[in-house]
Amino acid sequence: MFRNTFSSSDNQVLSNSAIDFYIRIQEELNVDIGLQKIGYLWLMDEMQISRSEPYLGRMEANGVEITRYTRGELEHLLPMMVTGFGADEEAALMSLPPVDGGIFGKKCGRLDPDKLVRYYAQDFVKAGGKFAFNTDVRMLQVGPSNPLGVEGEPFVWQDHRIDGILAHGNVDETLSAETVILAGGAWMNELLEPMGIESHVKSKKRQLFSVSARGEKLEGLLRTKGFNSLGLAPMIILPKAGVHFKPVSDEGVFWVACEDEVKQPFINLPSHDLQSYHAEMSYYERSVYPILASYFPDFRTSRLKAMWAGLYAYNTVDKLPFAFKDENLIVVGGDSGSGIMKGDSLGRIVDALYRDETEAVLYGDVSYRVSKVGFENRDVQREEWVI
Amino acid sequence: MFRNTFSSSDNQVLSNSAIDFYIRIQEELNVDIGLQKIGYLWLMDEMQISRSEPYLGRMEANGVEITRYTRGELEHLLPMMVTGFGADEEAALMSLPPVDGGIFGKKCGRLDPDKLVRYYAQDFVKAGGKFAFNTDVRMLQVGPSNPLGVEGEPFVWQDHRIDGILAHGNVDETLSAETVILAGGAWMNELLEPMGIESHVKSKKRQLFSVSARGEKLEGLLRTKGFNSLGLAPMIILPKAGVHFKPVSDEGVFWVACEDEVKQPFINLPSHDLQSYHAEMSYYERSVYPILASYFPDFRTSRLKAMWAGLYAYNTVDKLPFAFKDENLIVVGGDSGSGIMKGDSLGRIVDALYRDETEAVLYGDVSYRVSKVGFENRDVQREEWVI
Repeated sequence: MFRNTFSSSDNQVLSNSAIDFYIRIQEELNVDIGLQKIGYLWLMDEMQISRSEPYLGRMEANGVEITRYTRGELEHLLPMMVTGFGADEEAALMSLPPVDGGIFGKKCGRLDPDKLVRYYAQDFVKAGGKFAFNTDVRMLQVGPSNPLGVEGEPFVWQDHRIDGILAHGNVDETLSAETVILAGGAWMNELLEPMGIESHVKSKKRQLFSVSARGEKLEGLLRTKGFNSLGLAPMIILPKAGVHFKPVSDEGVFWVACEDEVKQPFINLPSHDLQSYHAEMSYYERSVYPILASYFPDFRTSRLKAMWAGLYAYNTVDKLPFAFKDENLIVVGGDSGSGIMKGDSLGRIVDALYRDETEAVLYGDVSYRVSKVGFENRDVQREEWVI
Repeated sequence: MFRNTFSSSDNQVLSNSAIDFYIRIQEELNVDIGLQKIGYLWLMDEMQISRSEPYLGRMEANGVEITRYTRGELEHLLPMMVTGFGADEEAALMSLPPVDGGIFGKKCGRLDPDKLVRYYAQDFVKAGGKFAFNTDVRMLQVGPSNPLGVEGEPFVWQDHRIDGILAHGNVDETLSAETVILAGGAWMNELLEPMGIESHVKSKKRQLFSVSARGEKLEGLLRTKGFNSLGLAPMIILPKAGVHFKPVSDEGVFWVACEDEVKQPFINLPSHDLQSYHAEMSYYERSVYPILASYFPDFRTSRLKAMWAGLYAYNTVDKLPFAFKDENLIVVGGDSGSGIMKGDSLGRIVDALYRDETEAVLYGDVSYRVSKVGFENRDVQREEWVI
């Protein structure tokens, strides 16, 4: 998914430029990356709307296209939605807010990550780059910048650099490079902690549930008109616990997820605990579904078709991305659930870091100071508009 | 060790007030906590001195007592010290800076942590408090704020709180409390990660080496006059790799340590790797000793008497302490090597957090805004003056 509707001006710039580039790939270069501008729709009660106003103002001032919907307009566009719960005991138990209005982000939607990555990969190979797929990087070896040939180097009085990359798999050797770029997502700590470098990344399990819509009552919701030129429902975010769903029209399903923070453990080293990252039916049934079906009762008659779990890698400092250089190592990550939608911009920032330039030029000739997303002189505006 | 010589105004306030309280315990309440104001002496080359000037100016402006020494004055006070290396090849290999001057912090020194803790413990018991020594806290149990009596609570749509503390040891039961305060140091993540709360604490192994001075050439250095009224050497910090040593006069030894960042792994969950935290003779011999003996050759004829390793718990965000509240849990820590010297102040901040007060009153009637050391509206000045 991608969106440019952030309260943080840094997130606005980073996402907007990257999205522009993706739109160019799809629409100008005619390379299909599955991009669909379905839009994002946040449903809110009055309190949430008034709390959002300062952030919406900031978005509008910076040219982010948003539309405000009243409750009446939403009831017209989404007639199957429940907007108020009256004396409903279950809704009261869950403290479900009514739907008093909605905020719609236009330059938001979905794309196909595999297809997007293939586009970049082809360009990289054309430029002479090589891939080693199915290969684990086991360790980054630290050595002295000026080796003395003495065992136990580097000592505390020596400068140091990465002088080897232990790889295992299709490539099974010690690689070396003048500059090493690490973009390891949730797996970052496995390589950085042994070197005493802090990435500020920890992960939580996130689950995705696929619910059949084709031939079901839900198909009406999936084919909702009025939000985009595709005649599809937008990504919809409910006013409780970040429960949200998006139409995957080619599969005839909705993907449902939830932004919960409660009780989900932080994972520091994913490899220590791999078997526990499976999706849980009970999580859907008892935590997600009760909220979902209260607002959209059509979900009651549809069955769960599939479910997955994966790692959501947080930058635990401020949930914004980072890129920094430490000797001959560049580390980039911390995308906190919005990796793809800022990926192109972060790539250009890494390129500038590599060239020791202080300003990166993002797509669309947008200048961005590289040190803003480092940790030493970090200068990013915190994000207040989270799903 | 304690010092009030920080560049960060927050560190200045937090340490200064706590040190004042410790001096009061020792000198006014006449409770022996082993406090010795021996002072801290930073040895520097010209570049380090000129880089320090802005921070020194900030210290002086805030009333921190410091003295500048010239190379000549230091050669007089510490005649056994080597201040320049000429054509010394080993020194050149290690890029050892000459000693062009020194900065001395007066309200700095050592105290006995066991004795200090015993003082607080006695006060706590007098006030009706209880201790459970030799007892592990195994888990903090999260439950719903308003339980429904349904299995699997809390669900994502419920508020939550800590409703149990699994203890094992002398006390072997599930404890509960209206408010839980966690001050777990390096062990914080063991309890917080399973709950999905980020402490921003990671640890590195730190080693201490005890070197005999009694009856050795080094005894002259230990009994150095001119820095304090005790006739003892101050804590001395060398201009390379943070190697430093302090006199422990009652044992007739120097304790030597090193602030190295290179290659020391970050430790997230200490219990997973306990056996590897032992001190290494080779670390002293190859990393610390070559620097130490270059500046103070008297160390050459003294033997290593003992060595220890322990965990140094960093707040990886900014190395300043934190205290925050999450529902009915208060978390305090991140002292990053200066826990004791700010401990009394942090205790008073936790007290204010517990009482929902926005301003803490530190010892000496110093007001300090509680939210400054939280993470939500963190507002602390970064520390630039590190050992």
